[in-house]
Amino acid sequence: MASSSSLTLSQAMLSRAATPRHGSETTSSSRSSFLPSLSGLKSTCTTMSPISRCRSITPATRLPIIASAAVERLDKTDTALIDKSVNTIRFLAIDAVEKANSGHPGLPMGCAPMGHVLYDEIMRYNPKNPYWFNRDRFVLSAGHGCMLQYALLHLAGYDSVKEEDLKSFRQWGSKTPGHPENFETPGVEVTTGPLGQGIANAVGLALAEKHLAARYNKPDAEIVDHYTYVIIGDGCQMEGISNEACSLAGHWGLGKLIAFYDDNHISIDGDTEIAFTESVDSRFEGLGWHVIWVKNGNTGYDEIRAAIKEAKAVKDKPTLIKVTTTIGFGSPNKANSYSVHGSALGAKEVEATRKNLGWPHEPFHVPEDVKNHWSRHVPEGASFEAEWNTKFAEYEKRYPEEAAELKSIITGELPAGWEKALPTYTPESHADATRNLSQQNLNALAKVLPGLLGGSADLASSNMTLLKMFGDFQKNTPEERNIRFGVREHGMGAICNGIALHSPGIIPYCATFFVFTDYMRAAMRISALSEAGVIYVMTHDSIGLGEDGPTHQPIEHLASFRAMPNILMLRPADGNETAASYKVAVLNRQRPSVIALSRQKLAQLPGTSIEGVEKGGYIISDNSSNNKPDVILIGTGSELEIAAKAGDQLRNEGKKVRVVSFVSWELFDEQSDEYKESVLPAAVTARVSIEAATTFGWEKIVGSKGKSIGIDRFGASAPAGKIYKEFGITAEAIIAAAKELF
Amino acid sequence: MASSSSLTLSQAMLSRAATPRHGSETTSSSRSSFLPSLSGLKSTCTTMSPISRCRSITPATRLPIIASAAVERLDKTDTALIDKSVNTIRFLAIDAVEKANSGHPGLPMGCAPMGHVLYDEIMRYNPKNPYWFNRDRFVLSAGHGCMLQYALLHLAGYDSVKEEDLKSFRQWGSKTPGHPENFETPGVEVTTGPLGQGIANAVGLALAEKHLAARYNKPDAEIVDHYTYVIIGDGCQMEGISNEACSLAGHWGLGKLIAFYDDNHISIDGDTEIAFTESVDSRFEGLGWHVIWVKNGNTGYDEIRAAIKEAKAVKDKPTLIKVTTTIGFGSPNKANSYSVHGSALGAKEVEATRKNLGWPHEPFHVPEDVKNHWSRHVPEGASFEAEWNTKFAEYEKRYPEEAAELKSIITGELPAGWEKALPTYTPESHADATRNLSQQNLNALAKVLPGLLGGSADLASSNMTLLKMFGDFQKNTPEERNIRFGVREHGMGAICNGIALHSPGIIPYCATFFVFTDYMRAAMRISALSEAGVIYVMTHDSIGLGEDGPTHQPIEHLASFRAMPNILMLRPADGNETAASYKVAVLNRQRPSVIALSRQKLAQLPGTSIEGVEKGGYIISDNSSNNKPDVILIGTGSELEIAAKAGDQLRNEGKKVRVVSFVSWELFDEQSDEYKESVLPAAVTARVSIEAATTFGWEKIVGSKGKSIGIDRFGASAPAGKIYKEFGITAEAIIAAAKELF
Repeated sequence: MASSSSLTLSQAMLSRAATPRHGSETTSSSRSSFLPSLSGLKSTCTTMSPISRCRSITPATRLPIIASAAVERLDKTDTALIDKSVNTIRFLAIDAVEKANSGHPGLPMGCAPMGHVLYDEIMRYNPKNPYWFNRDRFVLSAGHGCMLQYALLHLAGYDSVKEEDLKSFRQWGSKTPGHPENFETPGVEVTTGPLGQGIANAVGLALAEKHLAARYNKPDAEIVDHYTYVIIGDGCQMEGISNEACSLAGHWGLGKLIAFYDDNHISIDGDTEIAFTESVDSRFEGLGWHVIWVKNGNTGYDEIRAAIKEAKAVKDKPTLIKVTTTIGFGSPNKANSYSVHGSALGAKEVEATRKNLGWPHEPFHVPEDVKNHWSRHVPEGASFEAEWNTKFAEYEKRYPEEAAELKSIITGELPAGWEKALPTYTPESHADATRNLSQQNLNALAKVLPGLLGGSADLASSNMTLLKMFGDFQKNTPEERNIRFGVREHGMGAICNGIALHSPGIIPYCATFFVFTDYMRAAMRISALSEAGVIYVMTHDSIGLGEDGPTHQPIEHLASFRAMPNILMLRPADGNETAASYKVAVLNRQRPSVIALSRQKLAQLPGTSIEGVEKGGYIISDNSSNNKPDVILIGTGSELEIAAKAGDQLRNEGKKVRVVSFVSWELFDEQSDEYKESVLPAAVTARVSIEAATTFGWEKIVGSKGKSIGIDRFGASAPAGKIYKEFGITAEAIIAAAKELF
Repeated sequence: MASSSSLTLSQAMLSRAATPRHGSETTSSSRSSFLPSLSGLKSTCTTMSPISRCRSITPATRLPIIASAAVERLDKTDTALIDKSVNTIRFLAIDAVEKANSGHPGLPMGCAPMGHVLYDEIMRYNPKNPYWFNRDRFVLSAGHGCMLQYALLHLAGYDSVKEEDLKSFRQWGSKTPGHPENFETPGVEVTTGPLGQGIANAVGLALAEKHLAARYNKPDAEIVDHYTYVIIGDGCQMEGISNEACSLAGHWGLGKLIAFYDDNHISIDGDTEIAFTESVDSRFEGLGWHVIWVKNGNTGYDEIRAAIKEAKAVKDKPTLIKVTTTIGFGSPNKANSYSVHGSALGAKEVEATRKNLGWPHEPFHVPEDVKNHWSRHVPEGASFEAEWNTKFAEYEKRYPEEAAELKSIITGELPAGWEKALPTYTPESHADATRNLSQQNLNALAKVLPGLLGGSADLASSNMTLLKMFGDFQKNTPEERNIRFGVREHGMGAICNGIALHSPGIIPYCATFFVFTDYMRAAMRISALSEAGVIYVMTHDSIGLGEDGPTHQPIEHLASFRAMPNILMLRPADGNETAASYKVAVLNRQRPSVIALSRQKLAQLPGTSIEGVEKGGYIISDNSSNNKPDVILIGTGSELEIAAKAGDQLRNEGKKVRVVSFVSWELFDEQSDEYKESVLPAAVTARVSIEAATTFGWEKIVGSKGKSIGIDRFGASAPAGKIYKEFGITAEAIIAAAKELF
């Protein structure tokens, strides 16, 4: 791989920002009003009246409680200025939601203090290069509170969130959509909103850091070294996915993961008392986390600072900082109620809040002293990156091999010739299950792709996903590349999204039985939406799994992913097609791939090819001429063999038969009309498809006059061969269907 | 409602068993070899050598640990006979898996003692009427261990599992499929296998009991009174759904829910140490459960009994009994390893196990003394039911109104004329969001359907699901009918499956945003598979939700449910269609319904009707004659209004236009060919569909020559009207498409 300077590296990263979705501009005009001075002016606002909380809290008494009196003053900045900065955040959120007449002001108002402390005092980032590799990561798992993050990015000097962006909150084509979207807003790491996803993404980000640090850091060069911060709400806490991910975070000892739990006791339906009375503290202690309680999250800056300091000191466990806040803090009539969660305050209440918090300013106003205070982050961020670049240049000299590998991970540039590692097969190669062929591919690729890592949800020996040359990624062996997710499909998917979005060159894969994509579909949809190139290795892809029965047999799953935007559904039929599927999946770094694989043995078929699969659908055999077969037989995966057999038989009977492998509908859709016509000529309406799955959707391929052989009911528990026969997934059925069309 | 005797009631229930799937017999020939004597013979088998556990266990020291010495002897049956019975269970499992050469022997071998104690000593049931209303419920959440349950049902005298059924384990058409399936095997309450579902089902069963008990029990008549038992494994514990459901069980104080945690430290990938090191005890205590540890689950019958006794004494909390067992107990070379989890032992190891456990018998042999011992359950069960019938007859006399209601819940017979309560609308009724119209229906139905109860995953005020005449189902108000699920979609769905399968007349509904069906899809699939008539109230069903953006906007979801077997996907367009959707959903008690509803206001359309919706697709307006329109415009839900508008405009231009509402594809599929031809005549290929969702699948309806207007990308954050316009979901787009077809 060609060597490049570290600066080029950063620029490469920065260029990733430039894929706007709705034709909106990527680079806004720069504003030069930031003053370089770091000195703060005295605030003119009065201290807000504290809002009493009307509920009793019964904490586990052994929790370390951080209270004002007990902590040292950690930051020398004038508290009044901090109040002012915090109120700036609050009012930017209030004003943006008010202007949009849509959004969630409650969380930003309650979480502004922790947000301020994080972005202004704790986190290391470079506003002018949101993709600087060694930045601290921040995830707003409670994504509905996105105005908090937009306000912080704005104050910190990110070009992605200028004043005009705040003013176009939740509008068509804006950089400030209704929930944080990494593909729209540089500075946003992952896409959140669906609750619980963000905390699991954060676990993935922290895993990636721990893994890369273990692989690339040297005693004399800590080249990978950042924290992952996340804010989670009551909603995230209730979702099962967060328990899955947090159980793993505790198991892996992700000491640089620090989660703030916005403990405000309000969710959409009202007080959390109505549905959420568990002891979160006990649960997290059970999960192996360090737990700290900040009792005053509304104004207790020092408590928040002290908690972070303590969290950093605990290096072998992730930390949950429970921060008790008041949702909608500052709103005299709506704070501490669900009414402030998801609606604009309304002009009258905005006015009352301005009065209550002593905020005389116009909407969207950032006071000069606050601007000045925050303006240091642009030069500071540039310094952070420059220092790191120097360090990396040094590292590159001393450890050229590691540096080259790490650079490939940072930039996403695949090592030249990597695809030559893919195994090849001939019709003479022995028959095998595609899940086994998949393992051959994974193991071949692991040798040439430094960023490939992954694992299974407790089915490694069934999914065939172990990388034989590596051990397990565990608390004390984080340099290894086999991840053991346990039976936690949903957490697994979302963790992989975090891993994928950590660095463009990390290629996470994860595995379970195809039917259990139902457990992780929400995470897979976010892979697709957030352009995370996760590879989903999904074995046992049909009734062909046999005796486990209908609970384990996918029927509607192929169709359900073909219907999902921006995800590749691949169903290879043999060795060559499996290798091709991996080639496609690895190349598609901004689109996830689902590879459906068989449990049962399949023949290596004549005519299959990598080039064919790359086109989605292609001819594997044909005895017709002039693009005029009597019939086109179309199969995918394990049924391609059946289609090929039926084709042979029909040819023996003198028919002109084309057999087509339709491994990926999405890829076929992307081909030219000419190519499509060359495979499925419009004039040939005699078409028969076969797939051991629902026929739903197949009309698109076979047309109104064609026939689809499939399964439009649930499966059954019996040996695979018996089920195939009983359900009529046979060459005989194809031949009978074809004969009706001649 | 007509009154019927209690006996008829039971018979009605029993008749529910008779819907075999694969043409296999429902009633097998009865075997008369059970002897009525309860006396046990001395066992000839030697006590098995204890298998040492090679791992250290660090329990929370405050857990009540039940050890042999500490507990009173609770059962007078000869321990040797119990050993023999337990070994019978083990060998029935071993032999069945061996014969099938497929299955999971490890769990039954480890859990046989707790299974024996439950079915032989603790549970109240009637083998000859598996549907007796007041039976204790048992759920094997670790469903792969189904041979445990089949062996127990067999010993207890259920007709569903005769010796020949054990011998046809996992074979085509058998009553003993690879995972427990309620629709195949009377005596199995719910369908498990996908991990974590069963424990959530059990929470639903226990909720139903608590709710019905609160509504119908009287100081002088405890007519509803049973326990719910469940066995969960390490896999269930890792799944997020189980944490969701158990958090709710703790919150609701389901004191009659008793869960056995088969703590065997082995999952498929090996020792749980590799991925599951959390403290389950601490977590469950945090969730508000009572936790007990049985250290010797392999032979400690008295400890198991004592734990159950203690669990029953704790009335305000569910209990987790952690039972430490050895997976594959008795197998000298495979016990305590993953190799015994999911494969047959193999002839050699079966032999060694027979030797080790002192089991000289032929495969599938049940020793006479064991048979004798278990034979009391048939007469005992009949007595249980007879006593209850007497009690119910008494109750009916004293409380005729309550009895009639409860009977409707028990039999599933809907009160006569219930559908008259459905609201009706005319085109003059005011425009409204279908989510609001849905609430009108729910509230109207709650008055006439005693079994209707449900709620939302923390979105009651957005999904519009509150029943205004009722309060919240809570720990101390279990008689109420609004369930607050918190942000726990997956748990919600599976809990509703449990509620639905408790009694045929309970009609649970649950709600969230339509896009978040992705979180609960695994539970919804099991609704469909297990014939649980849950009503899924899914609002915010398209880009029409606006500003929340693509994370919240469903695109592929309609298609994904249309592709799923045995589930009704309904998308009503206005008031009449919403009422009709509820009518359909209520009538379909063995098929779940998903009702997709709009956030935005929709007009009441001329031509919509309940009768039309019941046919799935129907004409709402037409100016053609002889079934020969120039074009057919097809819409669903919020887009039907747009189709109607386009139709009007094309008619103004002199065209013959038919507008069709296609509210449910499944229902349309079930109509006669004649009816289908009357709506979509084959000769009319000029068809345009419009739906604010993926076009995937629409070729089936519009044909190869038709056009589909839809959205084959992710949505966007902006006001709804703007997105509709930008995405081209407009009357203009329909008109343009239609004109290309004339």
